[in-house]
Amino acid sequence: MAKYSIGIDFGTLSGRALLVNVETGEELAVAVKKYPHGVMEEFLPDEQSLPIDYALQHPQDYLDVLRETIPAVLKQANVSPEDVIGIGIDFTSCTVLPIYQDGTPLCFKDEFKKNPHAYVKLWKHHAAQEQANRLNEIAEMRGEAFLKRYGGKISSEWMVPKVMEIVEESPEVYQEMDRFIEATDWVVMMLTGRETRNSCTAGYKLMWSKREGFPSKDFFKALHPLLENFIEEKIGTNILPIGSKAGEITEAVAKLTGLKVGTAVAVGNVDAHVTPPALGITEPGKMLMIIGTSTCDILLGEEERIVPGMCGVVEDGVIPGFFGYEAGQSCVGDHFAWFEKNCVPKEYYLEAIAQGQKIQDYLTKKAALLKPGESGLLALDWWNGNRSVLVDVDLTGLLLGQTLTTKPEEIYRALLEATAYGARMIVETFIENGVPIKELYAAGGIVEKNPLMMQIYADVMNMEIKLSGSPQAPALGAAMFGALAAGKERGGYGDIFSAAKAMAKLKSESYKPIQENVKVYDKLFAEYKKLHDYFGRTEHVMKRLKAIKESLKGV
Amino acid sequence: MAKYSIGIDFGTLSGRALLVNVETGEELAVAVKKYPHGVMEEFLPDEQSLPIDYALQHPQDYLDVLRETIPAVLKQANVSPEDVIGIGIDFTSCTVLPIYQDGTPLCFKDEFKKNPHAYVKLWKHHAAQEQANRLNEIAEMRGEAFLKRYGGKISSEWMVPKVMEIVEESPEVYQEMDRFIEATDWVVMMLTGRETRNSCTAGYKLMWSKREGFPSKDFFKALHPLLENFIEEKIGTNILPIGSKAGEITEAVAKLTGLKVGTAVAVGNVDAHVTPPALGITEPGKMLMIIGTSTCDILLGEEERIVPGMCGVVEDGVIPGFFGYEAGQSCVGDHFAWFEKNCVPKEYYLEAIAQGQKIQDYLTKKAALLKPGESGLLALDWWNGNRSVLVDVDLTGLLLGQTLTTKPEEIYRALLEATAYGARMIVETFIENGVPIKELYAAGGIVEKNPLMMQIYADVMNMEIKLSGSPQAPALGAAMFGALAAGKERGGYGDIFSAAKAMAKLKSESYKPIQENVKVYDKLFAEYKKLHDYFGRTEHVMKRLKAIKESLKGV
Repeated sequence: MAKYSIGIDFGTLSGRALLVNVETGEELAVAVKKYPHGVMEEFLPDEQSLPIDYALQHPQDYLDVLRETIPAVLKQANVSPEDVIGIGIDFTSCTVLPIYQDGTPLCFKDEFKKNPHAYVKLWKHHAAQEQANRLNEIAEMRGEAFLKRYGGKISSEWMVPKVMEIVEESPEVYQEMDRFIEATDWVVMMLTGRETRNSCTAGYKLMWSKREGFPSKDFFKALHPLLENFIEEKIGTNILPIGSKAGEITEAVAKLTGLKVGTAVAVGNVDAHVTPPALGITEPGKMLMIIGTSTCDILLGEEERIVPGMCGVVEDGVIPGFFGYEAGQSCVGDHFAWFEKNCVPKEYYLEAIAQGQKIQDYLTKKAALLKPGESGLLALDWWNGNRSVLVDVDLTGLLLGQTLTTKPEEIYRALLEATAYGARMIVETFIENGVPIKELYAAGGIVEKNPLMMQIYADVMNMEIKLSGSPQAPALGAAMFGALAAGKERGGYGDIFSAAKAMAKLKSESYKPIQENVKVYDKLFAEYKKLHDYFGRTEHVMKRLKAIKESLKGV
Repeated sequence: MAKYSIGIDFGTLSGRALLVNVETGEELAVAVKKYPHGVMEEFLPDEQSLPIDYALQHPQDYLDVLRETIPAVLKQANVSPEDVIGIGIDFTSCTVLPIYQDGTPLCFKDEFKKNPHAYVKLWKHHAAQEQANRLNEIAEMRGEAFLKRYGGKISSEWMVPKVMEIVEESPEVYQEMDRFIEATDWVVMMLTGRETRNSCTAGYKLMWSKREGFPSKDFFKALHPLLENFIEEKIGTNILPIGSKAGEITEAVAKLTGLKVGTAVAVGNVDAHVTPPALGITEPGKMLMIIGTSTCDILLGEEERIVPGMCGVVEDGVIPGFFGYEAGQSCVGDHFAWFEKNCVPKEYYLEAIAQGQKIQDYLTKKAALLKPGESGLLALDWWNGNRSVLVDVDLTGLLLGQTLTTKPEEIYRALLEATAYGARMIVETFIENGVPIKELYAAGGIVEKNPLMMQIYADVMNMEIKLSGSPQAPALGAAMFGALAAGKERGGYGDIFSAAKAMAKLKSESYKPIQENVKVYDKLFAEYKKLHDYFGRTEHVMKRLKAIKESLKGV
């Protein structure tokens, strides 16, 4: 009898469940549930307004995903719950909420319904920038060793800036909450009835390492006196490695979802970090680019190396037994969307409509007719700062080489190329710092939608790029970890390597570098690198312009 | 009885006559004639096709302008030809043609009708770039002293590259022609029946100087053996200063135009160089910016100074008795037109239509709401190379500081600002090199149409900018020189200073710097200058990109 696993991918706007055959990896059913509250950026549910840079979610929405999508995939696939051996989830991160001991979110209580700090702070909640700046300053002054594992800088998106915001702005929420927990761990808690913490979010978002543990009490005290015992009181120090079993489906959840009591549940995981096994990546030397509005790069290594500008390196953070490296580009799909919205003349829209094409397809078609180097344009892909390798949110964009005959599709192509150069900078930096990269893989919607971009990536990096065979790669990865949590004896797997071997999928086609293009792109990349280092490291004109801009606010 | 003068401005696409009261400067009538043949860029009149970079004109069109516009203004103003005491013309330059001794253009003869080299080569005929490069190389190797008076480089638009093209590609035209003449001097020859050459075009376009004369025979021989006696044979060395009388209207022209035989005609002049007196500028220290698709700057000095990147310095070139300095920006109105055509999203067009506005007015309105420095953007205005102060056609554009929230009107404003920074570079370079500038003046269509741009110029340069009071400033200047040619005894003037005093016009409103903006623009200009010097002088990434682009042609 075939066995199945369910992976649930909790995204920014919706959750999607995927039901997979454990033996073959066959994807039998998908169900998507949009979060009823979406992203709350301006108002709480009661219409109380929010400060700027807020991005909150309602935890009830995640429970709705479980209640609707699990029965839906069981029904669609016509699979008996008896044959579902495991469940794994992945989530955006750091997406975090304050809860009581029993898992109840503070925002479920009437007395906290009007307090924004009682809700889920979504990964892209950016209101804790001031706290992050302070944290970085203090950590640097104290010479905290953990900094080097995070490219020298902790992001305002991570957990500690978010809890600093609470303790400073709403100490009553801080006092009231028993635990502060990643949404991925919270959903696992809801499924299993017990609290676990996973090594991925602990490592990448909470400065934990397997060998050194968490930052010291002294450090937390320096951030805020009330935070001295933050780890002991609100987090806990029992961190389970990725690939562990967190527990089993409870009776309540069985009722809610139709799953059997006792079905195995994997420890929580993160969308990008759960994906490599879905493409069969379970060993060092293979970098996976998950390309969307931004790009997240995941890579395994045998050793801990300090690589400039990486987002983090975490032992057991991606695949047990390896150091998981994360890097990223903060502006990829967003870059092209900005261009399409702001810089495409009306004639192009009219022409696209006349040809029955989407504007991005029309632009791509025109840009694809150009040869590398033909436009004379070069861009730096810093419209949203630079995550790796410079780790600098204050950097801004640059486009160079325009003439009076420059055409929109030439600029569009220059922006595509710029992100490819950015990707090559990351690859070269890893290699130069002792973390080998021998193969490239890509996943994400844009990978399917923009073949020109993928060919440019292959040409710029002079490497073949293999593609995810599943359009639901994160959910597939989560389902693999579900099968792993079930274990061999229940029909699952004893390790992620065998799970990946059986269930992973790659497209049969890949993008291979065209040597004629490689030659030109090598020259153009040399120019990119020069501009990259000049504006990123030497001449801080972008920062000074930003400072002038800031100084004008409220004038 | 009132006396009148007629100024005729020969532009790129049409000629316009202006009839002016000599005593008051009152403009009584204007008439415009479009050139029937326009600019011939692809075909000769018989539809024979032309090579790329060609821009020819038909000299008959200029005669048509005389025949139609002079009677038209006389009629409109109801002025008797008896009372028209003088006529002056100005022309684009270097716009040049081969003629016979009697003035007949070679292209009027059947045997040359199919030879492109027999026609007028318009200022923007760019097919002689290779010749210009060779000329510059040879002049540099020979250490020719004249180079320093032209910013170190002779343009492909000037007369010698254009005659080199003839002698190399069509020696039969070179042999056949008795004279090679600027169109401005040719029209004067048609009016007066005698050949004269003016100090303005001789100086700015043919490397002549009052003190050193023309380049040597040896130099011309080095360019091409047939050119050894080019000056003696085809030009002549009798150069009349601007402000001289060339001659008087002949009987034939009197018949053609209705003017009286004997009416005084001024020596030929050039559109930009004829304009300063129309604004009352007849002394040093006052720079006039004539702003159109590109900008031409004219400034008088007491001495000959070698200013880096000027287009030329010519004694008597603008106003007799002074050194006329010319500088320029190769991309101003063209810059904004490029942006409007290529970078404005459809929503903006729809909104502009809804508001009943032209797109440039709509953009300007939105850009005017921004404060200086608010966008964080900075551009280099090199979309069409840099004329002054870098004299480098291989430079290209740059835009820096983009973010995902950058709006089209912010980019538009950054381009306006970039041309203002370019103008400030020119002003500062003159001052630093001993040519004082104490006042700024502006003329040209864009000056009337874009008040935001003019305010930005005043703010960036921290100087008041006074504006031409006449919308026909070049024709008004030409009319003044007509009155000067007539002389005092006929009711005109004995010198250009008194003519300008009586006839010049300034708007009562001027643009004055707003100190709050000046402060921010000082900071932004410092950044512009840094980028200007880095990309213009130190790091030749733009040239390398252009070389890559060139190397791909025909691949």
